[in-house]
Amino acid sequence: MRIITLLTDFGLRDGYTGVMKGVIWGIAPQAQIADITHQIHPQNVLEGALALGRVAAFFPQGTIHVGVVDPGVGTQRRPIAGRLGHHFFVGPDNGLCSVLLQHAHARKDDIQFVHLDRPEYWLAEVSNVFHGRDIFAPVAAHLANGRSLTELGSPIDDLRLLELPTPQRTRSGWRGQVIIVDNFGNLSTNLTRQHLSGLGDVAVRIAGHEIRGLLRTFGEAPPGELVALYGEADDLLVAVVNGSAAERLAVGAGEPVEVIAN
Amino acid sequence: MRIITLLTDFGLRDGYTGVMKGVIWGIAPQAQIADITHQIHPQNVLEGALALGRVAAFFPQGTIHVGVVDPGVGTQRRPIAGRLGHHFFVGPDNGLCSVLLQHAHARKDDIQFVHLDRPEYWLAEVSNVFHGRDIFAPVAAHLANGRSLTELGSPIDDLRLLELPTPQRTRSGWRGQVIIVDNFGNLSTNLTRQHLSGLGDVAVRIAGHEIRGLLRTFGEAPPGELVALYGEADDLLVAVVNGSAAERLAVGAGEPVEVIAN
Amino acid sequence: MRIITLLTDFGLRDGYTGVMKGVIWGIAPQAQIADITHQIHPQNVLEGALALGRVAAFFPQGTIHVGVVDPGVGTQRRPIAGRLGHHFFVGPDNGLCSVLLQHAHARKDDIQFVHLDRPEYWLAEVSNVFHGRDIFAPVAAHLANGRSLTELGSPIDDLRLLELPTPQRTRSGWRGQVIIVDNFGNLSTNLTRQHLSGLGDVAVRIAGHEIRGLLRTFGEAPPGELVALYGEADDLLVAVVNGSAAERLAVGAGEPVEVIAN
Repeated sequence: MRIITLLTDFGLRDGYTGVMKGVIWGIAPQAQIADITHQIHPQNVLEGALALGRVAAFFPQGTIHVGVVDPGVGTQRRPIAGRLGHHFFVGPDNGLCSVLLQHAHARKDDIQFVHLDRPEYWLAEVSNVFHGRDIFAPVAAHLANGRSLTELGSPIDDLRLLELPTPQRTRSGWRGQVIIVDNFGNLSTNLTRQHLSGLGDVAVRIAGHEIRGLLRTFGEAPPGELVALYGEADDLLVAVVNGSAAERLAVGAGEPVEVIAN
Repeated sequence: MRIITLLTDFGLRDGYTGVMKGVIWGIAPQAQIADITHQIHPQNVLEGALALGRVAAFFPQGTIHVGVVDPGVGTQRRPIAGRLGHHFFVGPDNGLCSVLLQHAHARKDDIQFVHLDRPEYWLAEVSNVFHGRDIFAPVAAHLANGRSLTELGSPIDDLRLLELPTPQRTRSGWRGQVIIVDNFGNLSTNLTRQHLSGLGDVAVRIAGHEIRGLLRTFGEAPPGELVALYGEADDLLVAVVNGSAAERLAVGAGEPVEVIAN
Repeated sequence: MRIITLLTDFGLRDGYTGVMKGVIWGIAPQAQIADITHQIHPQNVLEGALALGRVAAFFPQGTIHVGVVDPGVGTQRRPIAGRLGHHFFVGPDNGLCSVLLQHAHARKDDIQFVHLDRPEYWLAEVSNVFHGRDIFAPVAAHLANGRSLTELGSPIDDLRLLELPTPQRTRSGWRGQVIIVDNFGNLSTNLTRQHLSGLGDVAVRIAGHEIRGLLRTFGEAPPGELVALYGEADDLLVAVVNGSAAERLAVGAGEPVEVIAN
């Protein structure tokens, strides 16, 4: 029993993700498949990379993460697959696995990647516009069946990576940015508990507002209040209790956030 | 083979529901997982309770329903799990299982609830903002593996319940309200076939409109007509044939509905 | 292990699709279930038929496709099930399987259909508004368990079919139309590589624009350019690179498209 996850920018209307499951089960009938999200904004590779980085570690060892945010489909960009410690990635070589790689390096995981250049493990006919179905789904299924990476492709060590937004130390604290806006309108930043641990009491500045102190959880302030707290990934979160900080502040990913020691 | 269902207000964009599947399969690899809905309006516990009440009975015996609409996450509100006859509920103690309980009482089911107070059955690190992943998913997986409720927590009998909207008898019929607006814009009310059974022919009044008589099904009236009929839960439904009653009448949940014997 | 797919116009908010999974697993606990889409526009049978036609062939032999776009539910329209070569269809007799049938005829598949008239294979109580749950889900599960079509119903050969939009040959090329607008805003037409194969270099005219020549894939033109290329089904696609052709041209399904040999 092997788990395959799917993360794409396909949306849910068109059946593109359903068809990937059909292809997978045609090759690996026992695979369990979990949708991570199919609502990455079209062609937003960074958003996909960040989302993948958030969820991968919560899946069991051996899980195969298929990511398809792929504006370069059908061009020279390589299809790739890799092992990062106990997890696998299958998708385009465009930086979509950048956050997974960053985490794997931090954990000192073994890392191995291949260029998928063996069409015998793909669908018989490969379109120029849908490698999710024609290459990545069948390759993930063959991995689930126990094929090794080096059966599926040729080793590479020159992956294309994204430049990930990194927080900057300032004289009085840290400067970071909003990186994810979630379904509740919570603003997740690239500042973490680790960054802020030495600062003592802090104030958070965003979009002309200043929030003094961090809550432990949402329910400690009344509904409607703009608050800051640590999120599910130990990320600094700016939120409105029972409301949407994204709407209140009219901001999105990329918005600067400053944290200042009091 | 045990079934676990998921009902949340997480939406589908953020991977929060995918990650719960990863946690479940890490503990109970054989569990089948069905998404009920992840589009409960944020923090709307009543909407979640009604949705759960609609679907639970159609799942096989032994199914474990995980519900996470949880504005009090990380506060004193207790995490709970319970057995209601042949089904299980896992989620916050905020009334989310109120309709399940009402149905269980009506069926005279055995009912048993516990306060989830044994962290050894949770993830090793528990955040203050995502108990769906850190407590409820692992507990559901342990239930699927055959753990008993009393292994997972301490018995309680003081659940927090919602006050559910109840229809009122009037001199000439019943007064109820819209409780669910579905994807088609159909208005489901808290009036049922049982309430109306003694009335003979009826008229339905809503938002200044009067609908005379009930159809047997949608196709009995021409497209565009405002009609009343019984829905999939024997609930009184106000609908527009091949259209949206919610849009036509510009009403939503809470809208009063009156039924009058002719 | 049998696969059942679900395609409906139910949306994802109401739990209608989750409940179908509960019913299926109550009868066929081993069935694997894949959602194709639940976002067919309400009552748009043609859109559902086209979507089903796109995905079915990518599923393994023996897959059972349940389609529920069913404005006539509860009327005289028959519930049906059929075998088309190595695949099964279960749903209403309203043309939803028209494209599947067209493909099966083209492949010279064996075709066999029955009128589902054996209530012993349905839920004990059948509503007039939700045959997806009460008839189609249990019938699909019984098929997955190995029941034959003729156990489930009586043979018929007078299916109700849709008139599918067909391209017309013109003096200088072909005239077709947009049939699907996908999540990216790509416009898929009913013109295919086969239609255009004899024409040599072509120009594509749509909504007052003319596109000269076909690309091999999206990445061959700069972001923002209006282009034409073959899609994942060898369909002629009109697209904006990293953008939305549907928005740019403000057109949708039904829009005429003309292809002219240069």
